[in-house]
Amino acid sequence: MKRVTDSLDAAGISYVSLGGAVPNPHLGLVYEGIELCKKENVDFLLAVGGGSAIDSAKAIGYGVTNEGDVWDFYDYRRKATACLPVGVILTLAATGSEMSDSSVITKEEGLVKRGYSSDLCRPRFAIMNPELTMTLPDYQTACGCTDIMMHTMERYFTNGGNMELTDALAEGLLRTVKKNAMILYKDPKNYDARAEVMWAGSLAHNGLTGCGNDGGDWMTHKLEHELGGLYDVAHGAGLAAIWGSWARYVFRDCLPRFKKFALNVMEVEDSGSDEEIALRGIEAMEDFYRSIEMPTNLRELGVSPTEDELALMAKKCAIGVGGEMGSAKVLNEKDMLAIYRASV
Amino acid sequence: MKRVTDSLDAAGISYVSLGGAVPNPHLGLVYEGIELCKKENVDFLLAVGGGSAIDSAKAIGYGVTNEGDVWDFYDYRRKATACLPVGVILTLAATGSEMSDSSVITKEEGLVKRGYSSDLCRPRFAIMNPELTMTLPDYQTACGCTDIMMHTMERYFTNGGNMELTDALAEGLLRTVKKNAMILYKDPKNYDARAEVMWAGSLAHNGLTGCGNDGGDWMTHKLEHELGGLYDVAHGAGLAAIWGSWARYVFRDCLPRFKKFALNVMEVEDSGSDEEIALRGIEAMEDFYRSIEMPTNLRELGVSPTEDELALMAKKCAIGVGGEMGSAKVLNEKDMLAIYRASV
Repeated sequence: MKRVTDSLDAAGISYVSLGGAVPNPHLGLVYEGIELCKKENVDFLLAVGGGSAIDSAKAIGYGVTNEGDVWDFYDYRRKATACLPVGVILTLAATGSEMSDSSVITKEEGLVKRGYSSDLCRPRFAIMNPELTMTLPDYQTACGCTDIMMHTMERYFTNGGNMELTDALAEGLLRTVKKNAMILYKDPKNYDARAEVMWAGSLAHNGLTGCGNDGGDWMTHKLEHELGGLYDVAHGAGLAAIWGSWARYVFRDCLPRFKKFALNVMEVEDSGSDEEIALRGIEAMEDFYRSIEMPTNLRELGVSPTEDELALMAKKCAIGVGGEMGSAKVLNEKDMLAIYRASV
Repeated sequence: MKRVTDSLDAAGISYVSLGGAVPNPHLGLVYEGIELCKKENVDFLLAVGGGSAIDSAKAIGYGVTNEGDVWDFYDYRRKATACLPVGVILTLAATGSEMSDSSVITKEEGLVKRGYSSDLCRPRFAIMNPELTMTLPDYQTACGCTDIMMHTMERYFTNGGNMELTDALAEGLLRTVKKNAMILYKDPKNYDARAEVMWAGSLAHNGLTGCGNDGGDWMTHKLEHELGGLYDVAHGAGLAAIWGSWARYVFRDCLPRFKKFALNVMEVEDSGSDEEIALRGIEAMEDFYRSIEMPTNLRELGVSPTEDELALMAKKCAIGVGGEMGSAKVLNEKDMLAIYRASV
């Protein structure tokens, strides 16, 4: 942080600081930031950190430039018409928020975790130095790689039309992150692997790997948001813990894509029925998660929800998506509960 | 064109028109456009067409907003400090100028063809409807696919460091364009293939497929520019005609990349020495050119330079690049002449 403030001082740029962004960043800090910006007439937001810092900055940017409660946007009640310009100094490769149109905020009351997307918040620049990510704990690195891959996988598993070019880019990105995640598991200071993962993080979530499809599936993220809201688990680990159960629940409804994923990303053997190949791909993905010590179920994630809590998450998830959602397979509350149960 | 002017009229946007952009667009039209823009106080340029229209608009944009002769930028004498905003309605997938920072203009006097690159000229938007490219003559479609692939190949064949992710994206893009170029050769109205090629055209030249390398090689383009300047051949066909000779001349100095290209893009058999594999990849690329009726030498391109003309092109090319250039292999005037001779 001192490097940043020294640099701003040297350039004669005046600033005020706001610390305290936490994983699953809180609405309270956003409100605090909005107040600070208004008081100090802040006209540019520089987020230093990972997704939590960037998403907090984006939400603050909306709050400063739009009347009323900023939570309205995350509650799908209205749309933002402006955002303060946001710049990024990235210290963690994961959320892709440095190049994406999205931000995710958690409201402490009721632990409601919601995302809001708009081109208005896309950062104007991002300084991405892989060296800044080298001191991350291994668990965070693995979580980051999981999140990165999932951003492209959410776009990949659809029934809504796909472009060959987009698929080729997505598959190349997924293979690259998988390979380099395994390198970083053994050699966390590997600069090249850090660089590959960092750049992949931006491309995985800026829209490139979803061009031409119907917007993607996103149900793994939605299912994880309830976990993150309720148990404050690391986002990447939560995704890994839920993905396998989601995949096994939906793959028959999206078989061509799961087969393609198995062959072109997980590079499994091309033999047997389409279902067998698809399942082999899902298993290979879970093997990969285990190889970097990511969980493949809730127990490994370290949470043991009661049946009531599972039902609560399913209910909140269904409300959060407006009843039902998904492209690989449209899921309703009952489906969500079944997936949560299978993931225990 | 009427659809465009009707749409502008309907929106109440006033405009003046300038037609006459030709392949290898001329400096004369650029001067004319600059004068027109200044007289009419034009504040936005809408290029309707392919690379010639867009590059002309970019050059006009530089000329209107910078003092002095706009050719200075293309003659590497000084740098532009501004450009009028440019928008694009794309009718031809080839140059990628709709998303790139570059423009290429030919000065009629001495037939000097030069490119100038600056982020200032990147179009603000591009409307890309694959249907608009369906009526192209087959030859132009094949030229476009060749140009698109070459924009990424120029970035791929380097000795200057590469990223795995960039390679994966580049290889995926090249495989996709190759496949869809062959589909369009047989089925020019194939919407999906048109869409794949059109989007690839933008991604091939916006910088994405060169991220992390040293800027690329670009000597095939430089060698072709002299052909285009002297004989006014179609750019894509000129590239195809010169590439094989360039590749055979340089591949031993860039063997790992040529081998990777052979295996991952041309998907040739992985057996024998690296040189054998690399050569197999070059041959496969030439076979592909032939399969879409692109030339693989100057004779097939329809030009028969005299020895004096070959020497003149080599001399102009060397001057154009400031003596020597290249990343796969640094080429000087002597090398350039050898490649021109081999391509006859």
